[in-house]
Amino acid sequence: MAVRVGVLGATGAVGQRLIQLLDPHPDFEIAALTASESSAGKTYRQAAKWRVDSPIPEDVAEMTVRETDPDDVPNDVDLIFSSLPSSVGAEVEPPFCEAGYVVSSNSSNGRMDDDIPLVIPEVNAEHLDLLEVQRDERGWDGAMVKNPNCSTITFVPTLAALAEYGLEKVHVSTLQAVSGAGYDGVTSMEIIDNAIPFIGSEEDKLETESRKLLGDFDGAELSHNSMQVSASCNRIPTIDGHLENVWVETEEDLTADAVAEAMREYPSLDLRSSPDPLIHVFEVPDRPQPRMDRTLGDGMAIAAGGLQESPFGLQYNCLAHNTIRGAAGASVLNGELLLENGYI
Amino acid sequence: MAVRVGVLGATGAVGQRLIQLLDPHPDFEIAALTASESSAGKTYRQAAKWRVDSPIPEDVAEMTVRETDPDDVPNDVDLIFSSLPSSVGAEVEPPFCEAGYVVSSNSSNGRMDDDIPLVIPEVNAEHLDLLEVQRDERGWDGAMVKNPNCSTITFVPTLAALAEYGLEKVHVSTLQAVSGAGYDGVTSMEIIDNAIPFIGSEEDKLETESRKLLGDFDGAELSHNSMQVSASCNRIPTIDGHLENVWVETEEDLTADAVAEAMREYPSLDLRSSPDPLIHVFEVPDRPQPRMDRTLGDGMAIAAGGLQESPFGLQYNCLAHNTIRGAAGASVLNGELLLENGYI
Amino acid sequence: MAVRVGVLGATGAVGQRLIQLLDPHPDFEIAALTASESSAGKTYRQAAKWRVDSPIPEDVAEMTVRETDPDDVPNDVDLIFSSLPSSVGAEVEPPFCEAGYVVSSNSSNGRMDDDIPLVIPEVNAEHLDLLEVQRDERGWDGAMVKNPNCSTITFVPTLAALAEYGLEKVHVSTLQAVSGAGYDGVTSMEIIDNAIPFIGSEEDKLETESRKLLGDFDGAELSHNSMQVSASCNRIPTIDGHLENVWVETEEDLTADAVAEAMREYPSLDLRSSPDPLIHVFEVPDRPQPRMDRTLGDGMAIAAGGLQESPFGLQYNCLAHNTIRGAAGASVLNGELLLENGYI
Amino acid sequence: MAVRVGVLGATGAVGQRLIQLLDPHPDFEIAALTASESSAGKTYRQAAKWRVDSPIPEDVAEMTVRETDPDDVPNDVDLIFSSLPSSVGAEVEPPFCEAGYVVSSNSSNGRMDDDIPLVIPEVNAEHLDLLEVQRDERGWDGAMVKNPNCSTITFVPTLAALAEYGLEKVHVSTLQAVSGAGYDGVTSMEIIDNAIPFIGSEEDKLETESRKLLGDFDGAELSHNSMQVSASCNRIPTIDGHLENVWVETEEDLTADAVAEAMREYPSLDLRSSPDPLIHVFEVPDRPQPRMDRTLGDGMAIAAGGLQESPFGLQYNCLAHNTIRGAAGASVLNGELLLENGYI
Repeated sequence: MAVRVGVLGATGAVGQRLIQLLDPHPDFEIAALTASESSAGKTYRQAAKWRVDSPIPEDVAEMTVRETDPDDVPNDVDLIFSSLPSSVGAEVEPPFCEAGYVVSSNSSNGRMDDDIPLVIPEVNAEHLDLLEVQRDERGWDGAMVKNPNCSTITFVPTLAALAEYGLEKVHVSTLQAVSGAGYDGVTSMEIIDNAIPFIGSEEDKLETESRKLLGDFDGAELSHNSMQVSASCNRIPTIDGHLENVWVETEEDLTADAVAEAMREYPSLDLRSSPDPLIHVFEVPDRPQPRMDRTLGDGMAIAAGGLQESPFGLQYNCLAHNTIRGAAGASVLNGELLLENGYI
Repeated sequence: MAVRVGVLGATGAVGQRLIQLLDPHPDFEIAALTASESSAGKTYRQAAKWRVDSPIPEDVAEMTVRETDPDDVPNDVDLIFSSLPSSVGAEVEPPFCEAGYVVSSNSSNGRMDDDIPLVIPEVNAEHLDLLEVQRDERGWDGAMVKNPNCSTITFVPTLAALAEYGLEKVHVSTLQAVSGAGYDGVTSMEIIDNAIPFIGSEEDKLETESRKLLGDFDGAELSHNSMQVSASCNRIPTIDGHLENVWVETEEDLTADAVAEAMREYPSLDLRSSPDPLIHVFEVPDRPQPRMDRTLGDGMAIAAGGLQESPFGLQYNCLAHNTIRGAAGASVLNGELLLENGYI
Repeated sequence: MAVRVGVLGATGAVGQRLIQLLDPHPDFEIAALTASESSAGKTYRQAAKWRVDSPIPEDVAEMTVRETDPDDVPNDVDLIFSSLPSSVGAEVEPPFCEAGYVVSSNSSNGRMDDDIPLVIPEVNAEHLDLLEVQRDERGWDGAMVKNPNCSTITFVPTLAALAEYGLEKVHVSTLQAVSGAGYDGVTSMEIIDNAIPFIGSEEDKLETESRKLLGDFDGAELSHNSMQVSASCNRIPTIDGHLENVWVETEEDLTADAVAEAMREYPSLDLRSSPDPLIHVFEVPDRPQPRMDRTLGDGMAIAAGGLQESPFGLQYNCLAHNTIRGAAGASVLNGELLLENGYI
Repeated sequence: MAVRVGVLGATGAVGQRLIQLLDPHPDFEIAALTASESSAGKTYRQAAKWRVDSPIPEDVAEMTVRETDPDDVPNDVDLIFSSLPSSVGAEVEPPFCEAGYVVSSNSSNGRMDDDIPLVIPEVNAEHLDLLEVQRDERGWDGAMVKNPNCSTITFVPTLAALAEYGLEKVHVSTLQAVSGAGYDGVTSMEIIDNAIPFIGSEEDKLETESRKLLGDFDGAELSHNSMQVSASCNRIPTIDGHLENVWVETEEDLTADAVAEAMREYPSLDLRSSPDPLIHVFEVPDRPQPRMDRTLGDGMAIAAGGLQESPFGLQYNCLAHNTIRGAAGASVLNGELLLENGYI
């Protein structure tokens, strides 16, 4: 029987992707949608300006949007997917956890908190056990798990594949799609025939979230990875798909061949939304490219290419679909992990 | 009296920019245009598919295009600007030099030759004296000076401003405009809603040309700079303007403030096409941007911004107009330098 | 048992789409691929720069590309799909028909010939009987059927839905995607931040092909529709999907409601690639849009919207995926019609 | 001595263009800037997110932004340029006229009022005398003149050149740039790899404003032109420059040659911002194009091309820079006309 799920922030860009992914999902059944006060009471069709590339699911379209408040969500909902602006998330997500809901959240608030697991299942599923610490400390009946920022998710799996070599220094330059900023985040006047070498707070997210994700959890405490990361973030005129240039220096020397093999063999998981292979490694030097490769593995794969030895360690490019693997799909996958681990 | 100049490869993207810049230039007078055999004999208007953003100069439009051969160029032409595919340049430029022409070339052939000065006037004008070595070795009556690749020109002036701190390691990621590949270099199917993380030979040019440009010339021999450079090159959907993310590590520690000052005070030259200031430093973090800032200093300025201290030295972004400062304007400026230094 | 099919011009933009559509098709089995002389002998993987948005089918990738010559295609191939430049098509398609092959062609050569059926199955399937006339006149064992130009296919089904009102005058302005010109047809320098109000021969195709498609076939002769059509064609910076603004004047007065109903109820066919509904009519005024609506009906539906009464008859917009419904899918659908009607 | 001018709505897209055009203008001196309440009191540099392609004028940058209220604007300002949302314009422009200011407005409110001259100086300068009627009826010391909508301005001068042939029917399809909607009007998610076949109220503006502009003023009353116009409006991914496909049917038959000549010879005016020629007619069929031709005549010229005879009269394309000729430049030109005619 499918788990009844709710979606907080259902009308936004990631909210719409969540609905696109959850509607056909065999393990989940959409039972509640929330949005801002101005949308509450409307049908979802009225409230959402539906813009993803498949038709709005008819049954979801007719659902009534609720306020983003635990009292307005039915008790038989067992899992909450949340994609809210961080200021809103910080305010409304904890009450859901207190009220007993398990929350898989894409919102950036709380991601770096010591007792909140920040999880990419194929990378650090074992961090999920931090939920025991969380419940102890917060006294919640529910629980909160976060997925990282879209630009973080793109490169961390490739680093995870190299972790055994001893990660030391990482430079990463990003070429990010406009959908990462939400529907209204980047105006056309800003980006046509242009690029913007700045995305507020983004560099910090890449630098800190990656170290938490690749850290060790000893059952009680999470220590962050000791590597140093420096990021430079750019917005470019693409719709979907974040492309990243990476240089990684490790304790042991790396060869391009060894890295390609490590990436290709990096294990996927036996969860429904986890693609196999997780990392698709191109041999031609001009791939991955956003429009060509963002839908690999139904948008859940990581693509890598351009592997070469440089004066500064190993150099390569990677790509992921920022609103699927980098946001909505990441939350759904965390939901599958929660289900698999008995949290729901 | 204006110097009579010829343009080799006059119908191409850079050739057209050369004509746009040379036509109103008070020191130069366009006296000969050459192109491939199929264009020879036509008027320039017929031969060139004019695509720059100012009307084709009427007098140039009526000139007859010649073959790219020293015998076809009048003797009273004193200076040749060349922008040819490197394979063509390698074949036809030396005969022009032998025949006594002074050549300011944008073509990539020969740039790394020991006796060919590779020059950005504001950075290494003193390398021009390598021409004495060149004439000794090659027995040319003429001479050949090269400007670097467009992506090299964008970041080298900012490094030059920091040279006194002792350059050690440079990482650079580029976001390059389509015009850098010439009119037919990038198809629309390749680049709309996309980015390509590879430009053939481009990384090598950034890595090697930058070390030559920042090297020392002792009057007899040129030693390349000892810094290490690693580049990652990307094509994005912008028309003009290469944007680059740079990390630079130096012997002495750098602060963002010191670097901003060093860049702002880096001297321009008293040549007609040299802008003042040479480097425009933005304080707002989201600039420079290609469409907004590529025309600073009539397309001859370097724009920098986003200066910040990182775990790996100083991090910043820079931008230049790739077909003006990065190609046609670079050649014209070298022509002005040759004139100033009595080579014409 | 699946019909064995060959694809002429298999490496081009439409050729790749043909392979994408034919590979999973239950009624057809790809048995031969041809391309230009320079590709012959290579594997398809080597010969084609694969650029459609699904991975290259593995079995097709390993097939050896043949020359475009009937002698090089196995005899047990029963149906040929052709997408060649018209000059090549004019030369090589007739020999295939002489040699007994049934050809479903997307190439523009011969489309307006009196004895060649130009067919959109949902619109004028009965024109297929013109093949009897063709065989009589040409003495072919094989046969040739054509689908119209991509921009013609986009608006003709909507006119067909209104034919009973007596079509008199049609104005149509097109906003066409770059893929319509093939992979190298439009350079990025031409189209980024731009539009081109001219596509060679395109206006004529819309004007003449539409009248042939909507003409009457009396079993012996085809008379073209008497309506007058004037087209104005533009290329814009979109990847796929032709959008068209149409005004249609009819003998009987039209209301927007009647037209919407006529379009919605216009019948689809019981062929595998024919979508149901054929015409999707939007009520919101800002649809159809290329990126949002080009994949309706797996890229085989026609989308219409913006229906309103004007001083000059009924005004509306329509859209179709130009390389699926407008080219490769159109040829495949004609192949299905040929199969259904016993020509194979 | 320069006329002191004020700019209402100075921080918006058209407001910035107004400042770009007015700052170097020898007849006008910027003396006051207004914006919304939230900007009042700030310097212009702080209040405006400057995005036009030339640096912000330093003296203007330091001016303090005022509220949009006649009491806040100094009395020695003699001319007001206004570019406000129509709802704001309807409320605040009349008080300025009452208070004695002469207003040249780009805002759409009141454009169709019987006693408000809607003027393109080269087309209908004589309509300016309607100001006498206006003052009689409204009792204003000041006066109000409007320029039309950007998409109207693009095609009306070409129709004016054909007026003597007896205009009867006009079909026009527009391909409009994103800047026409203001800085935040079109999001990047809406328009990259897309087109939108709808712009609210735009079709109506083209249809009604064109008839007013080409109407007759007998000294007392303005009668609108009797031609019928039907428009279809599209937004496409270009930054600046509206391109339009036009079919025009006239009483007398038109030939392409006669129309080309009529357009080329259509007179310009002896006003500073009026270009000569007013209409630039291309002979090559693929022009005008937005990126190539929008800056003709410093952005004040109309470009036309693709002239051909069709079943439905004469068919052609035209183009104008929508924020210069179509908005800010149009208002400035009307200011020059007001000055020339002694209204200031």
